[in-house]
Amino acid sequence: MHDVAGKTLIVLLSGGLDSMVCAGLAREAGARIVALTIDYNQRHRVELESAARIAAEVGAAEHIVLPLDLRRFGGSALTADIDVPKNGVGSVVPVTYVPARNLIFLSLTLGLAEARRAQDIVIGVNALDYSGYPDCRPDFIAGFEDLARLATRDGDQGVDFRIHAPLQHMTKADIAAEAARLGMDAGMSWSCYDPTPEGLHCSYCDSCRLRSKGFADAGLADPTRYAVGP
Amino acid sequence: MHDVAGKTLIVLLSGGLDSMVCAGLAREAGARIVALTIDYNQRHRVELESAARIAAEVGAAEHIVLPLDLRRFGGSALTADIDVPKNGVGSVVPVTYVPARNLIFLSLTLGLAEARRAQDIVIGVNALDYSGYPDCRPDFIAGFEDLARLATRDGDQGVDFRIHAPLQHMTKADIAAEAARLGMDAGMSWSCYDPTPEGLHCSYCDSCRLRSKGFADAGLADPTRYAVGP
Repeated sequence: MHDVAGKTLIVLLSGGLDSMVCAGLAREAGARIVALTIDYNQRHRVELESAARIAAEVGAAEHIVLPLDLRRFGGSALTADIDVPKNGVGSVVPVTYVPARNLIFLSLTLGLAEARRAQDIVIGVNALDYSGYPDCRPDFIAGFEDLARLATRDGDQGVDFRIHAPLQHMTKADIAAEAARLGMDAGMSWSCYDPTPEGLHCSYCDSCRLRSKGFADAGLADPTRYAVGP
Repeated sequence: MHDVAGKTLIVLLSGGLDSMVCAGLAREAGARIVALTIDYNQRHRVELESAARIAAEVGAAEHIVLPLDLRRFGGSALTADIDVPKNGVGSVVPVTYVPARNLIFLSLTLGLAEARRAQDIVIGVNALDYSGYPDCRPDFIAGFEDLARLATRDGDQGVDFRIHAPLQHMTKADIAAEAARLGMDAGMSWSCYDPTPEGLHCSYCDSCRLRSKGFADAGLADPTRYAVGP
């Protein structure tokens, strides 16, 4: 991340590995961190605990956990009674896609940025080892950055909001390695979409598969407690 | 609104005059109405009661009132302890601007549309008799429609979401006349940003001034109960 030292940076912090690494990069870059976590009544709400740990770890100046009950809309395995697929990462957008989620979340980060007089936002999207969600792709992020100018008072007055996506072109192995380089305990983060009753990562959802393969490919130990060992 | 007969249409329903007229136009056009109201902990939360009345009046198939506490962000006279200006509609964006509000709200309508397999959304923005909010202007609405394609699974699969803004080029007098033409009781709607303790329209905020002038210009009686008579 360029040119954020000493500036307020809004970190969209889910509590997953990717947003953890973004928060670590923000700290490394010397930004003043304002973290935003959305409690969208997601199946894996346990990730909110990880977000709180990470926000404390990176010394966030402020951490807002904002309730937004997307279960009222449904339409996703994460926000409705639809089974989470466990048979491997496929080639079509899976039912764990939450309608317009990243647009909704980025819009909220933009509102928070403007309210805090900040111009920088970071989101941990990546489009290599991912589930094919359209709202993780570079053209969506670029389009959002353009729209931010038209959508806000500050944009209307010439402010250019910047959406940082430092993991955009990283593999999950790169991201695991980045966590290690930053000296962060990856065990703080939560990835699994469908936690077991015992509070373990299920091992079989897309998010578990991508995570565990990432650490394996990077040759790093994953401190996560999976239901099924490697 | 074109070509919405028999289709599900997401109506962003604040409870104000503009969204009331949009709901009436949706009913007239024969759409199946799904209304979305955001309880953003706004100063004039009383508008939520108006939204419920309007949703019932137009026979909405579903009305979701979604809590989203934008007071956590602040930065506006509607969501923080900042006085609502009472000295007339000016030429700069006033402090009643809520950071990125229409982007946040449209993003939520888009998520709801996709979850309900709908492609049509209506929002009551207008950019003639308004407070200069950038997120009421045609280029913002057009930009959002473009981004909707990149932000969603349906868009990725070729669906074109349509953002209808039928009031875009109307004056407030036109809108008041449209309410009368549709046979709607404008007294159902709520406009005032800063209701009096007695539950009356304050008469002096931008929203009261624009509303009362609109009815006067249209030569129509406004059933609204103002704190100060005309």
